[in-house]
Order: sequence, then C-alpha cells, then structure tokens
Amino acid sequence: MKIQSVKGTRDFYPPLMAVRNFIADGWKEASRRNGFEEYDGPIFEYLKMYQVKSGDEIVEQLFNFTDRGQRHLAIRPEITPTLARMVNQQINALPRPIKWFSVPRLCRAERPQKGRLREFFQWNIDIIGVDDVLADAEVIYTSIDYLRSLGLTSRDIKAKISSRKLLAGFLINLGIPEGQLDTIYPILDKKTKLPEAVFDEMLAKVISHKRTAAAIKEFMEFKDLSNISDYLLEVIRNSDEGTEAEEELERLLDLLETMGVGDYCVFDPGIVRGLAYYTGVVFEIHDAVGDLRAVCGGGRYDNLLKDFGGPAVSGTGMGMGDCVLEILLREKGLLKDGQIATLQIDNFVAYTDMELQKDAISIAAKLREKGEATDISYKSGSLKKQLKQASNAGAKKCIILSKEFIEDKKLIVKDMGTGEQELINADTF
Amino acid sequence: MKIQSVKGTRDFYPPLMAVRNFIADGWKEASRRNGFEEYDGPIFEYLKMYQVKSGDEIVEQLFNFTDRGQRHLAIRPEITPTLARMVNQQINALPRPIKWFSVPRLCRAERPQKGRLREFFQWNIDIIGVDDVLADAEVIYTSIDYLRSLGLTSRDIKAKISSRKLLAGFLINLGIPEGQLDTIYPILDKKTKLPEAVFDEMLAKVISHKRTAAAIKEFMEFKDLSNISDYLLEVIRNSDEGTEAEEELERLLDLLETMGVGDYCVFDPGIVRGLAYYTGVVFEIHDAVGDLRAVCGGGRYDNLLKDFGGPAVSGTGMGMGDCVLEILLREKGLLKDGQIATLQIDNFVAYTDMELQKDAISIAAKLREKGEATDISYKSGSLKKQLKQASNAGAKKCIILSKEFIEDKKLIVKDMGTGEQELINADTF
Repeated sequence: MKIQSVKGTRDFYPPLMAVRNFIADGWKEASRRNGFEEYDGPIFEYLKMYQVKSGDEIVEQLFNFTDRGQRHLAIRPEITPTLARMVNQQINALPRPIKWFSVPRLCRAERPQKGRLREFFQWNIDIIGVDDVLADAEVIYTSIDYLRSLGLTSRDIKAKISSRKLLAGFLINLGIPEGQLDTIYPILDKKTKLPEAVFDEMLAKVISHKRTAAAIKEFMEFKDLSNISDYLLEVIRNSDEGTEAEEELERLLDLLETMGVGDYCVFDPGIVRGLAYYTGVVFEIHDAVGDLRAVCGGGRYDNLLKDFGGPAVSGTGMGMGDCVLEILLREKGLLKDGQIATLQIDNFVAYTDMELQKDAISIAAKLREKGEATDISYKSGSLKKQLKQASNAGAKKCIILSKEFIEDKKLIVKDMGTGEQELINADTF
Repeated sequence: MKIQSVKGTRDFYPPLMAVRNFIADGWKEASRRNGFEEYDGPIFEYLKMYQVKSGDEIVEQLFNFTDRGQRHLAIRPEITPTLARMVNQQINALPRPIKWFSVPRLCRAERPQKGRLREFFQWNIDIIGVDDVLADAEVIYTSIDYLRSLGLTSRDIKAKISSRKLLAGFLINLGIPEGQLDTIYPILDKKTKLPEAVFDEMLAKVISHKRTAAAIKEFMEFKDLSNISDYLLEVIRNSDEGTEAEEELERLLDLLETMGVGDYCVFDPGIVRGLAYYTGVVFEIHDAVGDLRAVCGGGRYDNLLKDFGGPAVSGTGMGMGDCVLEILLREKGLLKDGQIATLQIDNFVAYTDMELQKDAISIAAKLREKGEATDISYKSGSLKKQLKQASNAGAKKCIILSKEFIEDKKLIVKDMGTGEQELINADTF
C-alpha cells in the first residue's frame, strides 16, 4: 500500500530539518537576547476559542473535529488565543511585564501557495502588561534584531508601521459606525494584496459613499505623517483617539531610532492586519522589493485578555512564519542548499576485518561515554567506503582498526580535514 | 468568555517549558552523540496510514477528521508510519544505513492517567537497512546512553529484552496458527499490566486449550535463556526461527556487554510490545522498582517498509515519551521544581528617573547588538523593584543609570552574584 503525504504539509528530511532548526534556533536565540521566556500550549484547543476574536479569515481555515467525548476541537491556527487563555489563568501569579515567546507548529486549511502552507512554524513574541508604546518598540526591535542577525539590511527589509487606533479615529470621523469597523479591517488589509479594481469593488460593498471610499484610499497611501494633507490631518485630529495615536506613532518611531533600527522603519497607514483583535500599533515587515507576503506582522491588542474572560490588561506581539522567511533568505543568498550540516560528529570508527568489530564497538562506546559524538561502521567492507561514510557524517576524525591493531594494538587516527594520519595506542581509550 | 484547555493536554508555562526543553535537548544531544540525523513529518497524515500496521489499540486512539476536500485525516499518534512513508519515497537516494531521530509531538485520544496524556512528546530513533542485531544493540545502547547521562544507574533502570521472532517460533510450535499471532500479541503485552485473573480471562478468550495457555505464561516468566526448562527449550528450538532468535538474543546481550551497558540489560520474554509491526528483537526500559509504565520501548520491524509499498528493507527503532520519564526523574530526585532557569540574561538595565529612559534604551540596544542577552525596565520606578526584576530574569549584571549618569555619564555595574558594584564610563558602550 503506497501512501502519500497530505497536500500543503512538508516532510522534513534531514537537510530540510537542518534548515528548520537553523531558523527556529535563531528565533530562540533572538528571544533570549531580548529577554523573552519560552512557553507553549497544546496543538488543539476548544473550537469556540478561535471564534471569540480571531476574525473570520482564520475561523474559515480551521481544521476542526469532534472527539469521542463530543468536544468540538480545532488544531491551532495561531497561538495568541492560547496565550490569552494561559495568561488569564495565572494573571495574579505572573510577575509583569510578561515577556514570552513561542515557536508553535500551526495549521490552516487554506489552499497551498507560495509562502503559504497548511502546516507551518511561527515565531511569536508578546509583551503583556505594558501600556507604553515602548513595549511595541521592543517587539518591533526584537523582530528586526533577528532578521538583522541573519544578514538582512535596511535595504533588504522594511518594518511598515501604522496604528489601528489612528485608522479607527479616522474612519469614525469620516462617519463610519464603530460597529462596522471589524468588517472593514480585513478588507482594507487586502489593499496591497489585490489588484486595485478588485479591491475597489470589495470596498464599495461596505462603503457605498464614493468620496468616503476615496478618502480611505488616500489615507492608506500616505507615507509621511508630517506630509499628510490638511483635510486628512483634520479628520484624524478631530478626535482624542486620532491625536493620541499620532503622538504614539511619533514616540514609537523615535524609540526605534534610539534603538538603532530607525533606518529599518517607516510609517505606512496602508498596514491594517486582518485579525480582529488589534487595537493600537500594527506593523508588518516586508522585503523591500515587496513581491513577497509579509515576513512578519503584529500589533497591540488591548482588549484580548478581557475578551477571553480576564482583566483589562493590554498586550502587544508579533508572529513570523517560517515559509516566507525561508523564501526571502534563499532569494537573498543567505541560505543555500547544503549550507547547514545535517550531522557533525567527532569520530567515525572503521575496521578492515570482521574480527575487529568487537574492539571497534568497544572503542566507539568509550568515546561516546566521554561525550564525543561518534558513529561506527556496521560492517567491515572496504576502507574507502567507510571513509566516505565518515565524510558524509561530517566526522572530524576517522579511527581505523586494521592490521596495526591486530599486530600492536595500535589505531590509525585520520584527520578528515587535513588528511593527516597518526598511530596511537588503543589503550589510550 | 472563559475558556479552559482540553483535558489531557498541557499548558507549558515557562517553568514547565524549561523542563520540556531540558528533556528534548538531552534527547537531541544523545542522538547526535550516537550519530543520528534529525527528521520530522507533518502533524497529520491520511487516516488510512495508521490502519495499515499499527495495531488496533493505536487506531482506536486516533483524533481523526475530514477536511474540506473530503480527505480523511488523523493527528499522528506515532511517527513510525511517517518514517516508513518518507524512507520509501527516497529509498534509492538515501545512503544506508539510515540513522534518523525525531522528537515529534503526538496525540492519542485515550483516558488521561498517570504517565499517559492525550498529547505528549516522544523521542524516536531508528536504524534502517541493517539486518544485523548490532543495529538493535545501537538502538538500545543509545536509549541507555541518554538515561545514564541524566544520572540513572543500572540500579534505577533495566532494559528488558526479548524477541518477537522467539515468541512467534514458540507460539507456532505450540500449535497456534500464524494468522492468529497479531491478535495474541497485544493480549500478551498486557500480562504485566493487568491483574493475573483479568489477564488469564483475556488469554482464555483466544487460547482455549488450558495447557497451551499455561505454557505461554510459563515461557513469559523465564528470566534466563540458560535456565529455561527442557520442554520450553525444545518448543523454541523446534524451528529455524526459534533457534535463530535464540542466537540473535545471545549476540545482542554480548554486544551490549561490549558496549559497557551489560549491567543495564536483562533477557525477559515477558516483553511483547503492543504494536503489530515488530518482527524481531523487542525491548522496554523500566524503572527497577517497576511501578511505572515503560520509560521507552522498541524493536525490529522487518516488513514495515514493504507493508507501506516499499522494498523489503528492515529497520529497528525505539520510542521514549516525556511523561513517564519526567515522573521517574522527579521520583529519583534528578529533576526538581525551579532547577532549570526559564531565563538567564547577561544584563538588566535599570534607571532611577524617566529622563534617563532614552539613554537606558540606547545602552540596552547596543548590548543586544553585541549579542549579549539584555533586558530593560520599562519604567523608572524604585531601584529595589528593578533589581528584583533583574534577579528574576537571572541577570548576571545590573547596569544602573542614576545621578552618576546625569552628573558624569557614568554607569553603575552591579554584579548580581557577588553584589559588588563598579562605576564605568557610559561611552564604553
């Protein structure tokens, strides 16, 4: 019986696993470097958890099922709801600020395409309990810090920053009812992802007034807060919310400058994010060329804990998937096939005669017990073949039992880098 | 809305995550030390994949679902079928022996109880393409090597070793039809896990002949191949299979002795394993007291690749879950609450006045850019409180901006271990 893997999933053979580890190890290192602690939740949760506040797009993409106890469950499509649940459960015991990271495996039942698979890994960092945009700056800084550590410069990537609060203030001042905002955000989020005509049509369905629709588009295309039209500025500033958002964005950009990553950051009101739970700063990091999906995205969610039955404690966070990142790194020549070794052992033990096998096994075991990564040939076979095996395993040394061992209990130690050989006494081990 | 986690799953808050990482990192290290390369597969596969050869127990425990494309899928309850699928797909390209390991997240819809959860992590190591029991010895050695590295001695744990081939030869010679064996194995596997009367009743349902049932029980209770009754020995040796299995077991125990772990190993024909795919050596490692479930188990599967549509290439492997292991380590005092730090940073940056915040942020960013793990207070607040935060984060040093900075651009560097303080020039950074 021949069985295939499921479309949109990946088989991590050792070379691809090495790439996955390279990415995940970098995420973990950047998290620790910036003071985040690791957490994780279960791979499945109650289905209703994702129906609370994630937005329709994610709910449509759930792999859900009913277990024998008639529980309605779903494989996690994101970890933020789990984070909100976990933090709420221990909110009084956890010292604040809560700075947590995770590298969850996530699944979404969407059509596989470039940079989007049905199963992927995502780096998440969150800071909970800090109202100040300094926390947003920390999240954006940490994301850039990681990407910079891979060799991506401010010419390669840009963090595009805006604010849901700014957008909300603007839309409400344009006369759009507050209750309609959650429906409009996912549409605006599509602006840069769809052809203009398709986007216009989608927008017209929710905003029938043409001048309003045009003002929204004009707003989203501005790139500089100091160069915005008087009309738009007036609309923004015509509310405490808009004024507050503008001040927050200015402080945020100033903080990122102080942190030394100002050249990576731009204000871009075209950034909306699709998820329903954002309330403040939102951002996405894109490749500067801009033909890929966002490398990462995130923002502030001031009501999420409350929506999940907890107290009104605010948070801000970021998610970065592995798929787009891997494509970007390969495009930039920062990740090449075979660049990362699947195995790097210290010693490979070879032997030219089956009667030497037992001694070879004993020597290999002694090296392993000393903590040295050691592999051994399972057959005597030709020495050439065994040396090739040693080389494939990335062995630093090949230890050979041959006639010198039979005659004098001496081992040949071959340096696999230089090719140099020396004879040593077997009782050294 | 208050939502709970699903019964039988775990929330990995940072202290528990640190324990999970401690276990998984040790697994990865032991794998590399013994020459295994890492692989992984998807979290879900086609349901039918688990119906091929896993045995009824696992199939009953599947979390399965149907996706929008009407595919019947299941969350993986084990990774061995995925391994067989992946190896088959690239069998001609992969150099042999294939020595692979994985640390998959697995889910089984069973009733949660001590050492058994519905979601867990399992270390898997497999050697494919080596018929010799030397490969079985390597697998058992690697399992012991890991457990030994944690501080578990041969007085704490025992690897109990037997052979499906030996058992099959014995049962067939007793007159049991070969086609019935797959039904009998999971029952025999329960012998040590159930009260004797319950086991006898289960056995009687498949073996009606009382003397045969008694002979099976007698066989399973022998502990020494050299001390087995003449009658049983005759039954074993009355087939090539039985004789071969006996020789293999003798060579296996001898190899383990050569590897220096003989004192951890015992022959125990009571070991059967529940899964249907084992064909040769089978083993389990138990705590010596024996009141826990097996810490790990595995064995040889000579037909699995073929059953999955591939060539007749044999394999042998082991799986070790994290739940029983964690209980054992805690019982032995080898793992204590708070023993593993959730965070260990190099520097914590504190400041006594909000006007110093920007300088503090700049210094923290410079330290991070140098690769030093650094966290920073998000408020000026009391120095005592900030020092507590530094201590909670496991900081080695606390860098304090206070009046010395305002007056002379000097920083206080406090060694968090010794408590010693020194003044340095801020432009050092």
